[in-house]
This record gives sequence, C-alpha cells and structure tokens, in this order.
Amino acid sequence: MAYETKNPIKLIFYRLKDLDGLKNFLETKQFQYTIIGLILLNAITIGLETSPTVTNALGSWLTQIDKYILVVFTLEIALKIVAYRHRFFSSPWNLFDFLIVAIALIPAAGPLHILRTLRILRTARLIKNVPKLRLIIESLLKSIPSIGWIAVLLFMIFYIFAVIGTDLYMDEFPELFGNMGKTFFTLFQVMTLESWSSGIARPMMEELPFAYLFFVPFILLATYTTLNVFIAIVVNTMNELNRAEMKDEEARMREFVHQEHAEMLAYLKSIQQKINRLEKTIDKDETKQK
Amino acid sequence: MAYETKNPIKLIFYRLKDLDGLKNFLETKQFQYTIIGLILLNAITIGLETSPTVTNALGSWLTQIDKYILVVFTLEIALKIVAYRHRFFSSPWNLFDFLIVAIALIPAAGPLHILRTLRILRTARLIKNVPKLRLIIESLLKSIPSIGWIAVLLFMIFYIFAVIGTDLYMDEFPELFGNMGKTFFTLFQVMTLESWSSGIARPMMEELPFAYLFFVPFILLATYTTLNVFIAIVVNTMNELNRAEMKDEEARMREFVHQEHAEMLAYLKSIQQKINRLEKTIDKDETKQK
Amino acid sequence: MAYETKNPIKLIFYRLKDLDGLKNFLETKQFQYTIIGLILLNAITIGLETSPTVTNALGSWLTQIDKYILVVFTLEIALKIVAYRHRFFSSPWNLFDFLIVAIALIPAAGPLHILRTLRILRTARLIKNVPKLRLIIESLLKSIPSIGWIAVLLFMIFYIFAVIGTDLYMDEFPELFGNMGKTFFTLFQVMTLESWSSGIARPMMEELPFAYLFFVPFILLATYTTLNVFIAIVVNTMNELNRAEMKDEEARMREFVHQEHAEMLAYLKSIQQKINRLEKTIDKDETKQK
Amino acid sequence: MAYETKNPIKLIFYRLKDLDGLKNFLETKQFQYTIIGLILLNAITIGLETSPTVTNALGSWLTQIDKYILVVFTLEIALKIVAYRHRFFSSPWNLFDFLIVAIALIPAAGPLHILRTLRILRTARLIKNVPKLRLIIESLLKSIPSIGWIAVLLFMIFYIFAVIGTDLYMDEFPELFGNMGKTFFTLFQVMTLESWSSGIARPMMEELPFAYLFFVPFILLATYTTLNVFIAIVVNTMNELNRAEMKDEEARMREFVHQEHAEMLAYLKSIQQKINRLEKTIDKDETKQK
Repeated sequence: MAYETKNPIKLIFYRLKDLDGLKNFLETKQFQYTIIGLILLNAITIGLETSPTVTNALGSWLTQIDKYILVVFTLEIALKIVAYRHRFFSSPWNLFDFLIVAIALIPAAGPLHILRTLRILRTARLIKNVPKLRLIIESLLKSIPSIGWIAVLLFMIFYIFAVIGTDLYMDEFPELFGNMGKTFFTLFQVMTLESWSSGIARPMMEELPFAYLFFVPFILLATYTTLNVFIAIVVNTMNELNRAEMKDEEARMREFVHQEHAEMLAYLKSIQQKINRLEKTIDKDETKQK
Repeated sequence: MAYETKNPIKLIFYRLKDLDGLKNFLETKQFQYTIIGLILLNAITIGLETSPTVTNALGSWLTQIDKYILVVFTLEIALKIVAYRHRFFSSPWNLFDFLIVAIALIPAAGPLHILRTLRILRTARLIKNVPKLRLIIESLLKSIPSIGWIAVLLFMIFYIFAVIGTDLYMDEFPELFGNMGKTFFTLFQVMTLESWSSGIARPMMEELPFAYLFFVPFILLATYTTLNVFIAIVVNTMNELNRAEMKDEEARMREFVHQEHAEMLAYLKSIQQKINRLEKTIDKDETKQK
Repeated sequence: MAYETKNPIKLIFYRLKDLDGLKNFLETKQFQYTIIGLILLNAITIGLETSPTVTNALGSWLTQIDKYILVVFTLEIALKIVAYRHRFFSSPWNLFDFLIVAIALIPAAGPLHILRTLRILRTARLIKNVPKLRLIIESLLKSIPSIGWIAVLLFMIFYIFAVIGTDLYMDEFPELFGNMGKTFFTLFQVMTLESWSSGIARPMMEELPFAYLFFVPFILLATYTTLNVFIAIVVNTMNELNRAEMKDEEARMREFVHQEHAEMLAYLKSIQQKINRLEKTIDKDETKQK
Repeated sequence: MAYETKNPIKLIFYRLKDLDGLKNFLETKQFQYTIIGLILLNAITIGLETSPTVTNALGSWLTQIDKYILVVFTLEIALKIVAYRHRFFSSPWNLFDFLIVAIALIPAAGPLHILRTLRILRTARLIKNVPKLRLIIESLLKSIPSIGWIAVLLFMIFYIFAVIGTDLYMDEFPELFGNMGKTFFTLFQVMTLESWSSGIARPMMEELPFAYLFFVPFILLATYTTLNVFIAIVVNTMNELNRAEMKDEEARMREFVHQEHAEMLAYLKSIQQKINRLEKTIDKDETKQK
C-alpha cells in the first residue's frame, strides 16, 4: 500500500493497476479540494480573459493555465471512468461532469467564438464537487414535480394567448407579435410586467382600444399561475418539514407513553402474579378444608 | 356485448341503442386519450395557421383537419348528452366543455376574424380531459373563497381612487384619467408598478406637485391588499394540509394509545375476574364456615 | 311596543323617547341593509358624476340623491349618538363613521373642488357596515404590531439614504434629489424598482460612475427589509392558526386519553372495592377464628 | 455611594475611580434614553443641514450641536471602554458602535465632502441602543446561514452569465457589457426586471436576434434562485417557531398524561399494598391452620 515514489504521474499509474487504491485516491479530501481549487482558479482565469488589458499582458499565461487545467480535468474524468467503469455513468452528476469536460475538449477555434465562451460553464462543476451546493440543487430539483403540472398549465396559457396575439396583432405590430416566437417573447416580457403598459399595451391601444382585453386577462392569469408555482413550493417544503417534525414528536410521545405504561404494566403484572398465588393458596386451602 | 363490426360509425350507432355500452365506450381510456390527442393536434394546427408560410403551403390541409376534429368534438359532446341526458349538464366541467365546442360551431367567416381566432380556446378543453390539470384548477378555485372578500376590498380601493383620480385629473391628463375606464386601466398599471413614476407620476407632478399624495397611498394600499390575497392563499393551503396532517397524527396516536391501553385493560379484566372468583370462593368458605 | 303609525319620521321620534326601542331599531337587519344599500347607491351616483355626459343629462338628479343620502347618513349618526351617548365614541369604527360623515357636511363649494371629490370616501363606510370587510380590516390591522419595528427600521434606512442622496446629488440632479421630499419620493420609486436603473441610476452614472454604490446597497437593504415585513405577516398568521389548531388537537387528545383512562380507572376502582371487601371478609374470618 | 456634587463632569470623574458605579451609571435607563435622544436629535440636525435655507439661517447652530453631540458620543464610548476594558470589544455591537463614532472623528474638511455626509450613519447607532431594533437585526442575521449557500449559487450564476455576456457583447454594447463590472450591474438590473426587455434585450435583439437565449435563461435562473432565498427564510422561520410550539405542546401533553397516570398508579399501588397485606394475612392463616 506504500507508494514511495513522489512523482505524481508514476503514482497514478501505479494505482491504475490497483483499482481500490485508485478509488481511495480519487476519494481523498486532498484530491477533491485540489479539483475545487482548480475549478475556482479556472473561473478566475476565464474571467480575467474578458479584460483586453489583462489578455494583452498575460494572455499566453492564461491560455497555458487553461490548457493545463483542462488536461487535469480530462485526466480526472478518465481516471474516474477507469475506476468505476460503467457505474460512473449511472450517477447523473457524473454525467453532468463528463459532458461539461467533453464540451471543453471540442476544438474551439476560429468562428466558434461562442464555444470558447462556454468554457466558463466549467465553473458549474462546482455544483457537483461542493456537497452543500449539490444538496441545494437537489432540493431545488425535488420541488419541481410539485410544480410540473402548474408549469404545463402556464405553458397552455402562454400558448393560447400567443396564438390569439399573433393572429390578431401580427399585421399591425410585427415587432411584438410578428410570429409565434416573437409573441412568446412579448408575453414573457408582459409576465415579468416590464413595460407591459407604457411600452406595449398603451401604444397598441391607440390603434386598437380593446387591446386591454388581451393584456389584463393574460397578466391576471399568468401572474396568478406563477404565484401558485411559488405557493406550491413553499407549501410543499413546509409540509415535508412539518411531517418530519410531527413524526419525530409522535415517536417521542409514543416512547414516553410506552415508558409510563411500562411502569403501570409492571404493577399490573405483579398484582396479577400475587393474585394468582393467592388464588392457588386459597384453592389449596379449600381442597384441604374439604 | 360483442360488436363484431369494425366500422366505428356503425359501432357508435349500435351502442346508441345500448346506453350502458355507450357510457362504457365514452369512459374507456382509449377514447379519452384519443380526445386528448385530438385536442393537442388541433392546438398545433391552429398554432401553425398563425404562420403565413405554413398557411400558404398547407392551409387547405390544416382547415380540413380542423373541420374533422370539430366534427369529432361535436359528436363526442352529442354522444355524452345522449348517454348522460340532463345529468351531463349538472357537472360544471361538462358545461365548460359544451360551451367551448358550441362557440366553435358558430360560423366564423368574413369580418368575424376574432371568432376564428378564439378556436384556440378549444385547447382549454385539456383542463377538463387531463385529470391532473383539472385537479390543479379545482384547487385554485377552492382557494378563491378565502380571497373573495379581499377582492371586494381591493375593488373598493380601486373604485374610490378611480373616482378621485378621474375627478381631479381628467382635464389635465385625459390620456390617463379621461374617464372611469381609462383611470381603472391606469390604476391597474400603477398596481403592477409598471412605469408608475417615470411614466405617470413624475410627468404629472411637474404640473400638480401634490400628485404623489394620490399615487403613494394608492400603491401602499393596493400592494398591501394584494399581498394579503397572496398570504391568504398560502396560509389557507398550509393550514388545510396541516390540519389533515394533524388529524392523521392524532388518529395514529389514538390507535397507539388504545392498543397500549388494550394490553393494560386485558390485565385489569383478568385481575378483576380472578378477584371475582376469589371473592366467590371466600364467600362460599364463609357460608360453609358459618 | 307596537308603533302603529307607518310614518317613518314619526316612528323615529316615538322611538327617541324609548331608548331601548331606538337601539333595537338601529340594530335591525333591515335598517343595516338600508344603510349598506344607500352607501352603494351613493358610490354609484358619485361615480356617475365623473362622466360629463351623465352630469349634463342627470346632474341635478344626482345632486339631489346625494343630498338626501347625506341627510339620511347624518340622521343615522345622530340617532346612534342619541341611542348610545358617549359609548358611541368608544368604538374606533363609530369614530371612523362619524368623521367620514362629518367631513361630508363641510360645505364643499367653489374652489374646494377636492372636498367634493373626497365624498367618494363615504364608500369606505362599507368597511364598517359589512361585517366580513370589517373582519378583514381588523385582521390586517392586527398584523401591524408584528411589522411595527420593521417599519421603523425601513424608515431609518430611507432616512439615512435620503440624507446621503440629498447631500451628494442635490446639485447635479435637482429633479430627483433636490430636497429631502424629492429624495424620499425617488427612493420610494427605487424601492418599487420602477425605472431605477434606466431612468435614474444609469443617467446618473454617466456623470458619477460610483452612483451604483448608492443604489445597489439601498435596493438590497430596502427590498430585503420589505421582504421581512411580508415574512413577518405570513409567519405570524400561520403561527397563530397553527397554535389554535394545536390547542384543538391537544384538547381532543386529552379528552380521548381521559376517556380511555376513565375506563381503566373504573376497573381499578372496582378491583379496589372488591379487595377492600375481601380484606374485610378475611379480617372478620381472622377475628372469628381467633 | 452618594455623589453629592451636581456637576456632571465631576460626577463622571468620581465614578471613574469607582468602576462598578460607572457601570451602573452607564446602564441606567436615563443614560440610555439620553443617548437615544441625542442620536435622534443628531439625525434631525444632519437632516436639516441638507436644506440650504435652513443651513443659511441656522448653519452655525447646527454645526455646534453636532460638535457637542459628537463629544458626548466620544465620551460615552470612552467611558464604556474604561468600564468594560477589553470585554467592551468582545460584543460585535460595541465594535459597531465604536467604528461609527471613530469614523465621525476623522476630520472631514475640504474635499472629503463624502465623509461629512456619512455622519448620518451615526443614526444607525439606534439599532444598537434600541433593544427591539437590535432584536430584529439579530433575527435577520440569524436567517442568513440558511441562505448562505443559495447566495453562493446566485453568485455563481451571476459570474457565469457575466463572463458569457462580457465575452459576447462587449464590442457591440460597451455601455451595458463593456467590462465585468458593467455586466454585473446590467445583470443586477435584469434580475430586478427593470427595463430588461424594452431597455436592454429588445435593442440588442435588433442586431443579435438570439440574445434572448442569454436573457430568458438568466431571468429564470436568477429569479428562481432568489425566490428560493425567500422560501428558505420563510420555511426556516416557520419551522423554528413550529418546533418550539410543538415542544411546548409535547411538554403539556406529557405533563397531562403523567398526571392522569399518577392517579392510576396511586390506585395500583394501593391495590398492591392491600394484596400484599391480604397475602400476609392468608399466609399467616395458612401457617396457623397447619
């Protein structure tokens, strides 16, 4: 178990032969903190690259660091796949990790400026590697089923109003309602209440005075439904916590009542035993007397 | 019970004579899924008709599909009325369904472009036909009584401020406060906080520097009241769930306590019986000894 | 007790001599509904007067109705004062009612157009006369103590930022920060997030690039504190309801446990009695045997 | 203990020799109310100084009052340090108090207009000196740990979108996305939903029609995460209160059950004693009979 060599590459290769050792190595705190450190360092270097002055001064350094970090990340994922084989892909978090690194490996040269930009998404690996963040995301995801059907309802409201809006206003207001896509964006803006009246409804009402019959119902329905998404999450979370709390209280009460009863049962048992003995004595008495 | 014919029209007519068979047919999963499928298909075709390119290419096809779907919907409602008679109209959901289809039957030609547009409302039939959506709508409707009187209060606030606003500002700002209708719309906009200051209050305050005495109280009252609508729903929903949860816990505790007591009662009963027997034995003894 | 006359004025004067009768009359459902009806009628007539066309056509009628209703309201309050004397003023609701009618009696002619406008505030009498509305207002008022000190905190934040804002920006932006009053209004607008950036912060940052150090902290502090006002109300209301619910559950559990125990106690008592009797029998036996 | 002199300075120096007396003096209600009164007076005088008319008329007076109040505050802190020594700095509230007064002592002349302005921060001393306000702040601070990691998540979302936004849009829209700082401000504005579409997204989409792919996900993620900050606070506060409430109920129930059982135990004990006596009597009997 003692790998005396100090060369990390050699160390890794030794462990490659020894799968359990590799797993242990991948699960050491030091290794995990190193990865978190590299993710943070990478976030900073990519952030610095947005500044032209910094890029001019340190550009090649930053590119170098970025390359090395990508090498480490690739190695890390590769080692994990070696260590855990197909079970690696059974965790959605690992898949998430794998995809982020895989995307980064696509050569992002020339016209694909946007792919270079998306490198910053690697920062999202923090979610997988910091347990607290993963916990929050998991609890956020857990609250989604309770809002799933409300989301369907919200989409239905959007779709119905989008068809009506496109149909009625596409000719007069092509900017806002030119096609389903534009209408969806306009409705999203209206739902966030941003300039819905001063920027959209009022200018339209100058030509179509009844346009408020489109906007006011949409706002009421959309905000009320969104509100219920929110309420569903609060109520759900509270309820789950409450239930757990109540279960705890119930268990404690049961334990308490049970102990109290145990004392009484002890008395009852002793009384019963005594009476049994008394009975026998008297019965014996009886038979003797006969 | 075996309808051997494969012709669906014939099948339906056979079943027409046999009311229970018709009801069973209308309640089969397949039939219901077919209706849901047609509603979704119709939503898509109506959506596609908003695009001029698609309409040019496939317009007649889409109109055909729309017609056939409407025929199926009409038949569906007709069959349901045949099957359930007057009881069909006793469910508000059926009435809702009936009205949506009935509106679609109004010939929507020529100038009544808007009626054609309202066909998309048929998509709302999903609510009736997808149980989960119906459940959500029902729970949303159930929360309305708790907010009914707050809505009355909110309307009172709107009405009082609308009269004051119209009275004071109709001459200087006819765009915003020209009549009760315009004022209501302006107040609704102010309640959503959209451009209330930059677009409405500040321009007015240049002429009437005390206009803030109108807007600030209105915003405080209206948002505080709306907030309480929201709070009422949260608190109500939570409370109902909590009560149910507590009832459950109580029932479980009662059951537990009862079982624990049952054990003690068994002891008590056996002790009593023994003592009764002892008493009799001793009483007999007594009488014998006398 | 039988007032045979049908003339309501006479009836009222009869009752004036008979204070209990007067009180009963004032508390009849019919009288209260009449008042509610008149408040609503008055709300409508005042609303109609905002329309120039209606005023031209029916102006004198509406003024007449308004006068008569005011007479009835004045009489109502007068009779209540006669009936309840000083106790009338001990209820804040009565005081509220009294003030609204008293204000309406101030002659509102000529330049005091605004006083005429404030007649619509009489509609607020509904709150006093419709029990459900009164209940809501009372529950809204009850939630105020829990937010009282948060309001003090919010005012402190406003005051501190108002002094800083006025001091720093009054020269460059007299429109927004010209004096404490203007700054308070600007801060209120910023708190509602209306055009805070596009209309206020961005234009300012062109001259004073560090202005965001004023706005971002203010927004964070003000919205976070407002949020806590809201949370305080939700938590308070929920907690009160929960406590009541728990008290109920506890009472029911106590009752249940008590009844279960009553059964066991009955056994225990009967057992004790029997043992007491047995003891006596045996003791008698003993003494006899001696 | 009786300091007969009426000269407050002398009094204070006497007490300086007598540390316990000094502590008592610093903790008297009168002293504390005097400090609160001075803080409020100072808040008013600094507020008045924002008005040029008032400053022209009473400027020198206000400056004098300000100086004297600062002297009192400095003395107060000095005395407290004398009285409590190093323990004074162990309370974060005292440190807060100390820093506010210390800052005020920095000579604020000439170009450092801003330091003079920050004098108003002394008003924040109210938080330390009014127990109710301190309580609220403490409860607000207590809710922070529960939102700490959500804040980290929110920062991560901001950072990732800031890098992407700066990278993609810095050339076309230097005003909004010119560097990381500007982008952060723009994203903050978008998160508050202020003019996000009419002022930012729509103008950008005229050149870059896919810009909505940047804004819509950001709004959804940022508002959803912020929402969860809010939910975390509500749920946390509610849960804590609920737990306390439940503990109370549990304690009361235990007490009740225990008392009920005490009664039954008394019976059981008495029955056992009697049976023990009976047994002995019968056993004696037996041995006698033998």
